[in-house]
Amino acid sequence: MKTRAAVAFEAKRPLEIVEVDLEGPRAGEVLVEIKATGICHTDAYTLDGLDSEGIFPSILGHEGAGVVVELGAGVTSVEVGDHVIPLYTPECRQCKSCLSRKTNLCTAIRGTQGKGLMPDGTSRFSYKGQAIHHYMGCSTFSNFTVLPEIAVAKIRKDAPFDKACYVGCGVTTGVGAVVNTARVEPGANCVVFGLGGIGLNVIQGLKMVGADMIVGVDINPAKEEWGRRFGMTHFVNPKEVTDVVAHLVELTGGGADYTFDCTGNTTVMRQALEACHRGWGESVIIGVAEAGKEIATRPFQLVTGRVWRGSAFGGARGRTDTPKVVDWYMDGKIEIDPMITHTLPLERINEAFDLMHAGESIRSVVVF
Amino acid sequence: MKTRAAVAFEAKRPLEIVEVDLEGPRAGEVLVEIKATGICHTDAYTLDGLDSEGIFPSILGHEGAGVVVELGAGVTSVEVGDHVIPLYTPECRQCKSCLSRKTNLCTAIRGTQGKGLMPDGTSRFSYKGQAIHHYMGCSTFSNFTVLPEIAVAKIRKDAPFDKACYVGCGVTTGVGAVVNTARVEPGANCVVFGLGGIGLNVIQGLKMVGADMIVGVDINPAKEEWGRRFGMTHFVNPKEVTDVVAHLVELTGGGADYTFDCTGNTTVMRQALEACHRGWGESVIIGVAEAGKEIATRPFQLVTGRVWRGSAFGGARGRTDTPKVVDWYMDGKIEIDPMITHTLPLERINEAFDLMHAGESIRSVVVF
Repeated sequence: MKTRAAVAFEAKRPLEIVEVDLEGPRAGEVLVEIKATGICHTDAYTLDGLDSEGIFPSILGHEGAGVVVELGAGVTSVEVGDHVIPLYTPECRQCKSCLSRKTNLCTAIRGTQGKGLMPDGTSRFSYKGQAIHHYMGCSTFSNFTVLPEIAVAKIRKDAPFDKACYVGCGVTTGVGAVVNTARVEPGANCVVFGLGGIGLNVIQGLKMVGADMIVGVDINPAKEEWGRRFGMTHFVNPKEVTDVVAHLVELTGGGADYTFDCTGNTTVMRQALEACHRGWGESVIIGVAEAGKEIATRPFQLVTGRVWRGSAFGGARGRTDTPKVVDWYMDGKIEIDPMITHTLPLERINEAFDLMHAGESIRSVVVF
Repeated sequence: MKTRAAVAFEAKRPLEIVEVDLEGPRAGEVLVEIKATGICHTDAYTLDGLDSEGIFPSILGHEGAGVVVELGAGVTSVEVGDHVIPLYTPECRQCKSCLSRKTNLCTAIRGTQGKGLMPDGTSRFSYKGQAIHHYMGCSTFSNFTVLPEIAVAKIRKDAPFDKACYVGCGVTTGVGAVVNTARVEPGANCVVFGLGGIGLNVIQGLKMVGADMIVGVDINPAKEEWGRRFGMTHFVNPKEVTDVVAHLVELTGGGADYTFDCTGNTTVMRQALEACHRGWGESVIIGVAEAGKEIATRPFQLVTGRVWRGSAFGGARGRTDTPKVVDWYMDGKIEIDPMITHTLPLERINEAFDLMHAGESIRSVVVF
């Protein structure tokens, strides 16, 4: 079949909207009509050529929502007509990771996904006879895409696609880091570094679980209003204090119970760890650092009880937890609508990247 | 009163055995007759002048066992005749840390202890009219010493002092890191870096909780026999493999569930983290690094699910958990006797330091 898609033919060039060829689903795969997709920093990171493992030509996009329109052989867990969110972190429930009960990082199709291919080692997309690669196992910048059955999460049908798509990455990454990774308890004092599309979701996750202090840290003063909108109780601009760590330790009465880095800056990651309370403070790295950058600290920080951990896709098991996050949205426990600052048709997808780079959007969503 | 003690008059000089003056216990304090004391690397670290916060003259020693011989005013939790282990990590059960349920690092007397003083800001020891400092709140290199009530753990009376003293630091630090800090579960695959007095106790802690693989790593091939003696199942000499991390990841079938650094070497600490299993492996830093040294890694290691933490005094609450470790020893769940390689009278305490520096002892104990 033919489908419209925004294709990244090479790095550092705008996406091109073309009609590509799409093969139908093979065994264990499903064809999904993407109804809406968010544009995330990770897409920009790849398109800008910063990801040394980026593959071109490819169809980017990993934050979508849509409808199952065709099943490959043997597919049993979803039906035609089901509403689904594509998962860049699948959940096979059979691999060592899924069975560990300790991680969400399913390894069933990691090898081929990293190569931009379906699990059988081939691509379903092509353009003028040339194969186009998949991206993060999703390729939601295409109106139709093929996904492994284990990489779609079935969600309720009354959730609007243009909001539910954000659950496919940003919302779950932020809220999940609070709920699944840090497991923040009510009454905790927390600090969130970086109030972008992830940080704001960390904040509303903290609000949902009953944190006491929710301190937002950002060098952009305009972010204070955004943070407060979602539950932030205190705002700190590092440019306005002499020692941000000392300031945060004092503000939180000895250090934070939990801190979250949503910046990807390794210097900030260190600050986030060292702003933790002696004895028990835990720091969670969510942001993706530049290639080659390292984090560092004195081991004394850990020996005296601080814990350094990370979170990918909010520690959420894709098929199990993503539908719950959609429920939380539909139940009013978390918000999505105000974060979707821009909604555009596919033809204007490059504008979404411009808005992100200009810092003018929290999240832009493309609707098909 | 007068008491014999090994005094560190200044750094880098042998201890001198002299009679010092000891004031009796003030309110909330107890006088303890030390029956036996271990000699630990931390004592040597201070005596060798490597601790920038070392204070002289002082009476070192922090790994002792003895008998309560006099109570200060208001002491209610121990009686004369009780057998006790002095605690460099006290347990007041009233401070924010003790009440957090998350850490053993009681802060009740941290300020004065770090200055070599009792909680009221004075010293009980003097020599020829000059004050001698306390050390780590214990000073077990003195036949009699004064301790805050909150810094003694009451233990059973049938435990031999010359073995129970080791529970005051080394045994609890190693076994506790497994039981309290990492909370290793049966069946886990674990790696222990550094098979000295702490590492061997980590190994026997892992054996006690039912770990499957207990891999010991040491550059000294003579440590293999020691490790196997306490439950080590595999031995790796980093000098005999090209890439110790890759080797350990392969040996453990994808990485360890838990790793423990007992070396104090920051390069090894990084290896310990990176030898952890993707998704859930946790690395515990126990060793004390040189002043100024930092640990580093790529944040990707944490984002993909590894956890970096530390352990001080094995995460053990001094008064609550130390007596349990003594019970485990008396019940045969853990061993101490074979680790006490040398037992010496106080007059020969400097030989214990020589044995340690020469790598000839696992643990030397001085009996009074």
